[in-house]
Amino acid sequence: MSTLLKIDTCFSPYLYPIYADTESIVVVIDVFRATSAICVAFAHGAEKIIPVATLEEALQYQKQGFLAGAERDAVKIEGFDFGNSPYDYMSPHIKGKTIALTTTNGTQAIEAARHAHKVVIGSFLNIDVLCQWLVNQNRNILLLCSGWKNKFNIEDSLFAGAVTHQLLKSNHSYALGDGCLAMKYLYEIGKEKPTKFFNHSTHKERFAKLHLKKDIRYCLVPNSAPVVPILNGSYLVNAL
Amino acid sequence: MSTLLKIDTCFSPYLYPIYADTESIVVVIDVFRATSAICVAFAHGAEKIIPVATLEEALQYQKQGFLAGAERDAVKIEGFDFGNSPYDYMSPHIKGKTIALTTTNGTQAIEAARHAHKVVIGSFLNIDVLCQWLVNQNRNILLLCSGWKNKFNIEDSLFAGAVTHQLLKSNHSYALGDGCLAMKYLYEIGKEKPTKFFNHSTHKERFAKLHLKKDIRYCLVPNSAPVVPILNGSYLVNAL
Repeated sequence: MSTLLKIDTCFSPYLYPIYADTESIVVVIDVFRATSAICVAFAHGAEKIIPVATLEEALQYQKQGFLAGAERDAVKIEGFDFGNSPYDYMSPHIKGKTIALTTTNGTQAIEAARHAHKVVIGSFLNIDVLCQWLVNQNRNILLLCSGWKNKFNIEDSLFAGAVTHQLLKSNHSYALGDGCLAMKYLYEIGKEKPTKFFNHSTHKERFAKLHLKKDIRYCLVPNSAPVVPILNGSYLVNAL
Repeated sequence: MSTLLKIDTCFSPYLYPIYADTESIVVVIDVFRATSAICVAFAHGAEKIIPVATLEEALQYQKQGFLAGAERDAVKIEGFDFGNSPYDYMSPHIKGKTIALTTTNGTQAIEAARHAHKVVIGSFLNIDVLCQWLVNQNRNILLLCSGWKNKFNIEDSLFAGAVTHQLLKSNHSYALGDGCLAMKYLYEIGKEKPTKFFNHSTHKERFAKLHLKKDIRYCLVPNSAPVVPILNGSYLVNAL
């Protein structure tokens, strides 16, 4: 019998201080679309991604010759190389490159968790390798949902449920926080047809008229980007 | 066609500033056990309940001759008249009385929401009359879960799902925040047997060895206390 490890879910970066400890691995989740885009960038050979909180910081990196991505309110900011669409990062030009990135929610969540034991990036695009990596670490886990401007959102929470569901099938015994328990049940009823939830969720309002259907579909397909982005000081690298 | 009203759920008093507006009615929820106990007290004829944040304040009221209830970490504090068990408030002696009350989570959530348009108290014990009252107000609604020490808990969240489920059966059209959407689905899969969730939830750990099984069962039975406690300045009264 292995040790009883803990998994919990924090539904907003604003709540992170309540859940933070120095022992857990934090998985930052922003399914639509920052953490999906980050996974795609590493799967296409990016060497480093520097998450930054402000547009100004991203611009400074760009002026120094780095590539830079910037999104606010689901829209790419003019003058930057990328927004936060996964499709922006499917270019062969990013191979070996360092990219500075700032987004509405995802990079803010990374910033919040910066001092955790380890910080990794989760999305449906890397779920299997991420879960395997988490199991191998043999540590407590905190799933940190980026949410939407610090409010609960359903896509990040469902992903937390998907990770919980998958970790419970591993050899470890995990004690679940109530957030994981609720989202595991929700994921299990929705997993055959996750669009069931998304057709009613607020992302429709958030993303209205932005023609993001193709992005949203892509972000829900598992395992197209089998990487484990991990925070190493001020930047992310692929742990695999 | 009536106006499209909004319902959202906030899963922690700590997150309340993110969800707060001056227009919504806030429903404070602490199923295990403060808001259940408050409903029972009014159903047994209490005239006013004064929610206070600290033990010291509750003690001051007691010294002035009021009845006073105090709970911390699920335990009644010595020297006070009541804890937060619903059974504590089933006495004929509370008829017409004013009671000062402080608890770990529920009274803190009331304190957080104090400046909302209106603040009412929700529990399974008053769910039908509460929902009918909410429908009659014809206003946006925020369901504020007290949680456990500012963390998400499953009993308050499921109750938020139960209220959402019930309001959607009314004549109003409600737009749901993602928290309501998720909890409505969860409630609908669990409503035949809510203990399905509770057998695995962290309340077992929180309430371990405290012999609270009877309380917990009681707090999940709908409509035994058909009252609508509402905040009127510094104290609660029954709106019905």
